[in-house]
Amino acid sequence: MRAVDIIMAKREGRELSREELGFLINGFVAGTIPDYQVSAWAMAVFFRGMSPEETATLTELMLSSGGRMDLSGIPGPLVDKHSTGGVGDKTSLILAPLVASLGLRDPMMSGRALGHTGGTLDKLESIPGYRTGLSPAEFREILARDGFAMTGQTRDTVPADRLLYALRDVSATVESIPLITASILSKKKAEGAEALVLDVKYGSGAFMKDPAEAERLARSLVDTGAALGLRIIALLTNMDQPLGSMVGNFLEVEECYTCLDPALYDAARSADLMELTLELGARMLMLGGKAGNPEEGRRFCLEALAGGKPRELFLRNIESQGGDQKRFLAMLGTYRSPHRAEIPAREDGYISRIDARKIGQAGIGLGVGRNRSEDPVSPDVGLQLHKKAGALVQKGDPLMTAWGKDRESLKAAIPILEGAFEYAAAAPSPEKLVMKEIRYG
Amino acid sequence: MRAVDIIMAKREGRELSREELGFLINGFVAGTIPDYQVSAWAMAVFFRGMSPEETATLTELMLSSGGRMDLSGIPGPLVDKHSTGGVGDKTSLILAPLVASLGLRDPMMSGRALGHTGGTLDKLESIPGYRTGLSPAEFREILARDGFAMTGQTRDTVPADRLLYALRDVSATVESIPLITASILSKKKAEGAEALVLDVKYGSGAFMKDPAEAERLARSLVDTGAALGLRIIALLTNMDQPLGSMVGNFLEVEECYTCLDPALYDAARSADLMELTLELGARMLMLGGKAGNPEEGRRFCLEALAGGKPRELFLRNIESQGGDQKRFLAMLGTYRSPHRAEIPAREDGYISRIDARKIGQAGIGLGVGRNRSEDPVSPDVGLQLHKKAGALVQKGDPLMTAWGKDRESLKAAIPILEGAFEYAAAAPSPEKLVMKEIRYG
Repeated sequence: MRAVDIIMAKREGRELSREELGFLINGFVAGTIPDYQVSAWAMAVFFRGMSPEETATLTELMLSSGGRMDLSGIPGPLVDKHSTGGVGDKTSLILAPLVASLGLRDPMMSGRALGHTGGTLDKLESIPGYRTGLSPAEFREILARDGFAMTGQTRDTVPADRLLYALRDVSATVESIPLITASILSKKKAEGAEALVLDVKYGSGAFMKDPAEAERLARSLVDTGAALGLRIIALLTNMDQPLGSMVGNFLEVEECYTCLDPALYDAARSADLMELTLELGARMLMLGGKAGNPEEGRRFCLEALAGGKPRELFLRNIESQGGDQKRFLAMLGTYRSPHRAEIPAREDGYISRIDARKIGQAGIGLGVGRNRSEDPVSPDVGLQLHKKAGALVQKGDPLMTAWGKDRESLKAAIPILEGAFEYAAAAPSPEKLVMKEIRYG
Repeated sequence: MRAVDIIMAKREGRELSREELGFLINGFVAGTIPDYQVSAWAMAVFFRGMSPEETATLTELMLSSGGRMDLSGIPGPLVDKHSTGGVGDKTSLILAPLVASLGLRDPMMSGRALGHTGGTLDKLESIPGYRTGLSPAEFREILARDGFAMTGQTRDTVPADRLLYALRDVSATVESIPLITASILSKKKAEGAEALVLDVKYGSGAFMKDPAEAERLARSLVDTGAALGLRIIALLTNMDQPLGSMVGNFLEVEECYTCLDPALYDAARSADLMELTLELGARMLMLGGKAGNPEEGRRFCLEALAGGKPRELFLRNIESQGGDQKRFLAMLGTYRSPHRAEIPAREDGYISRIDARKIGQAGIGLGVGRNRSEDPVSPDVGLQLHKKAGALVQKGDPLMTAWGKDRESLKAAIPILEGAFEYAAAAPSPEKLVMKEIRYG
């Protein structure tokens, strides 16, 4: 078997066999098949696509390149959620304790911020002492005890994905639906999930701008996930404006905590975040056999939040993962960089749009995220939206507060943040948050 | 400028600027842009193509990566021919002395056999002592004196093409019309040609099977060549059965010599070879300003051959390039490997087809050609066709004699050679040898 023949077969639109894909992926990981053949193959896949069977096979092959979390013996359905990424997208931190309080186990293996979208690990690490690099034994133990655990990928987590993703990133082959599918699902299978709810986002702040393209990705993920034995549902959700009111690392953890505490929850700030959380949580409960339909799932979630158990689990997890609960609570509302600016409305009228991508890009400059994976992030920077799309404002009204890592970065971000707001004379028609649910079959 | 953005632009179908292509090609040659980005770009080019301007720019950039033959001061129009390769394709060895005898100068820089098609350098080196690695000074001197000179590419001849071709070969990106165009024309410009006749072949024994695809390549070559200031014509020619009657290294030189000597020429063996040679030679004379139309060009060629000057120049060139003319003449008809087999007809009927690709593949096994560029070839092996397509044969009639480098290779080649012949009850309609002429504009 020769790699060049495999590349040519894909170039000509042929479906590759398990043997051919195995030869390519195993050879790539072993270093016997060079980067320049794999990048040419990835570009051919970009143009030719893959059949559902081929995508499932690729996912399995990638999965078997590394170790899998051994979660045998842990009771309760192992249900996770995965989002394709957005701005202010923080549902994981609310969902994990919420569904854990209702009897699910959420083995959450997350990534870091890259580009304009945030990363769960960076957010959690803004809590003093919080460790995201758990050993497999710690992960098991915390998951069994608290109902959820939050960890990062290691070098042994799907090495084929780590190597292939790095190569796709520099060869302009990231945007391929079967390759994205295999990347996401191989990692979710590796963390040990049995069921998975996908939040596939479209719009300005999402990886995919176009709803139709996002739907194709959702369909690919659901079909491939089902072929791999996962119980799986995808929601197609809007990411045109930031989710909730906070964008940042600690700022997002703080907003999540207010959503978990009925005494602190502010619908004026976080209604869309809570709405999406409930829709996702309801599906997690359904897949875990704890709810018969989405309405019942939502009801269970609302009851659980009112009872305070999710908040308690959230605080317990901080302690379990080495964080300082007391310091965390003392930081709420106060842990902010001293470099602060207020962004006022520049016109009278309705806010017709808050461009999530611009907000996310400005966030990188403030210190929230990173352009290169080796760059550091700042825990106490970001921004808080005081108005969301649809609000009627007068010139000079406060729209947003921004905190930057230093004066210069703050100054540079202000015009980008101002430019993210668009105004209209009439109220815009509200965007639907969840556009579609995609199930298998 | 980032290579990944250039790859993405091509992936999305955008035309690349001179700056972008220069960044990529110069960086590749300098080693600052890695193989894995260039192979992904080449695959994107395979799918998206290139505009005529882009192709011309790429050719110029590749050309300027190396040195150019300095042929200033050499009198007479510098006219060359290039073939896309075939089985038994040996017109170069007849054309060079033929057009030189009529006042053209042919600076012929050639390649070696690779795959099922032969290489001019390998054929010439079957003449004892013949050197194809001429220094630039020797090349100039022989060209000026004999009217043609035959040399190989050096490491300094279009290094961008050498590197890119090696990468395309292993990344399944050889079959891209703009990349083939830039590869061919950069080398022809580097050798110093002012005018070029292209023999673009289609059919079983050609690089391109499909006439429409070959025509697209011919059109790209002619348009790009014209944009680069070459006077240029392409002929689209059939390569379904081997050209002439000999396939091999010395065997092909021998057949060429018989075509140059009216006393030895045998139309029953070499009519198609001579026909194509005259069509190509007539166009070379037209482009060199020595003939007003193809008919006149053909007439001049026939008169020259009858006069014996081309044969004389051929023999003089052997001496000029270090070969032994006397030994060469003594080898005619006798220089054959002792490992010989006769292939008889297996059926009564008309020969409807002689599959040139199978003949070429069998030739590799016999020792004519090579699968890898580092493999050696044998000078005295190959095969001689006694019948061509259209001939009426009886079972047992001799179809072909084959000579192999050893008994084993000969034995292995026989079933492939037998399988190359197809039979029919009725005479097949003859294939047109020259399907089309393609000129600029």
